[in-house]
Amino acid sequence: MSPSPSKRTEVRRLPERASYDRQLIFAILDEALICHVGFVHEAVPVVIPTIHARVGDTLYFHGSPVSRLLRGMRSGREICVNVTLVDGLVVARAAFHNSMNYRSVVLFGSPRIVDNADEKWAALEAVTEHVVPGRWAECRPMTDKEFKGTLVAALPIDEASAKLRTGGPEDDAADYDLPIWAGVVPLSMTPGEPVDDPEAHIEVAVPSYVAEYRRPRQQP
Amino acid sequence: MSPSPSKRTEVRRLPERASYDRQLIFAILDEALICHVGFVHEAVPVVIPTIHARVGDTLYFHGSPVSRLLRGMRSGREICVNVTLVDGLVVARAAFHNSMNYRSVVLFGSPRIVDNADEKWAALEAVTEHVVPGRWAECRPMTDKEFKGTLVAALPIDEASAKLRTGGPEDDAADYDLPIWAGVVPLSMTPGEPVDDPEAHIEVAVPSYVAEYRRPRQQP
Repeated sequence: MSPSPSKRTEVRRLPERASYDRQLIFAILDEALICHVGFVHEAVPVVIPTIHARVGDTLYFHGSPVSRLLRGMRSGREICVNVTLVDGLVVARAAFHNSMNYRSVVLFGSPRIVDNADEKWAALEAVTEHVVPGRWAECRPMTDKEFKGTLVAALPIDEASAKLRTGGPEDDAADYDLPIWAGVVPLSMTPGEPVDDPEAHIEVAVPSYVAEYRRPRQQP
Repeated sequence: MSPSPSKRTEVRRLPERASYDRQLIFAILDEALICHVGFVHEAVPVVIPTIHARVGDTLYFHGSPVSRLLRGMRSGREICVNVTLVDGLVVARAAFHNSMNYRSVVLFGSPRIVDNADEKWAALEAVTEHVVPGRWAECRPMTDKEFKGTLVAALPIDEASAKLRTGGPEDDAADYDLPIWAGVVPLSMTPGEPVDDPEAHIEVAVPSYVAEYRRPRQQP
């Protein structure tokens, strides 16, 4: 399904890079570890990074009820969510044509606070699994107090668009004869060796979902 | 210099993670490839990723004069800039205590459009060098038309704060006796092998600043 863009999600600048394909939008949201949320507070924009997770066509956020972010979501006013994956540096012959390869999603809407306990549990599981798949089943479950002390907000993935750049440099025709190297430096988020908690009381082997942790490119 | 925080930049949630140290703020801004800019357009927040560069205590942005982002900056209204580096996944014993290690900066202010040609050239050089240090001197310089067709905006790094999390999990005392692995998965942005432009007319060796490209951790 590729709904028509709204006035706000329509990509006007370089529209050839735009996509309104829902599966592509979902794949970008799922791959990105964090998002940036913008809201208006006392007439001024505020941008805060946070963890998100997608369940179907809903995006969930969680946090402390006293955080500025969650209070911003509680207001019922519109927010804007941006997720950006940087895939590479595009090194062109001309300074003017240097660029980046990226996949980005922008999403508008009014979040609602999740009151239903089942939906809230599912959202908190999704957030944990979004970051480290396999972790939810193994970790010490949330207590009732922790559960009640966490606020969850939900945003429909409705008014969204993706913007992408892929491929090599796009220089002016005349510049291809210049003796200047051009190409792409691929970039990716790479995990290092897991570090055991130095405060651990007992020795526990690193679970496979941690030892083999990757953030694989999601294909729509 | 560590100026006092303003009402907006004061970190109220987990204030022990906050810093107002300018050298630390500069180091985070310099290491991050991109930032997220929030502005208000028709009473709605808009968040857009873009490349930035710091010169002294000024942050510069560039783009097409018709882009939504630059038009947002042109309005003279306040913007919010957020830069976030994700350093690792904090895998705690309790789902509630899972976290991330990160370094983040939030910055408020009203950008001005850079009209002075010398300042504009220096800003465009800084943007190129911010992404690929060493590139500006080698690439085909901007033409007058390209220069005039690019808008540059400047934001004083004045009202800014940093927020950081480092170290291992912080579980509840009783949970340290559970037979659950806990620790940190370090994450970093890693460059792959440079890919030559497949459209190249002539063969040029990969320059060393590309072959050895790294995004080293900036120490304040």
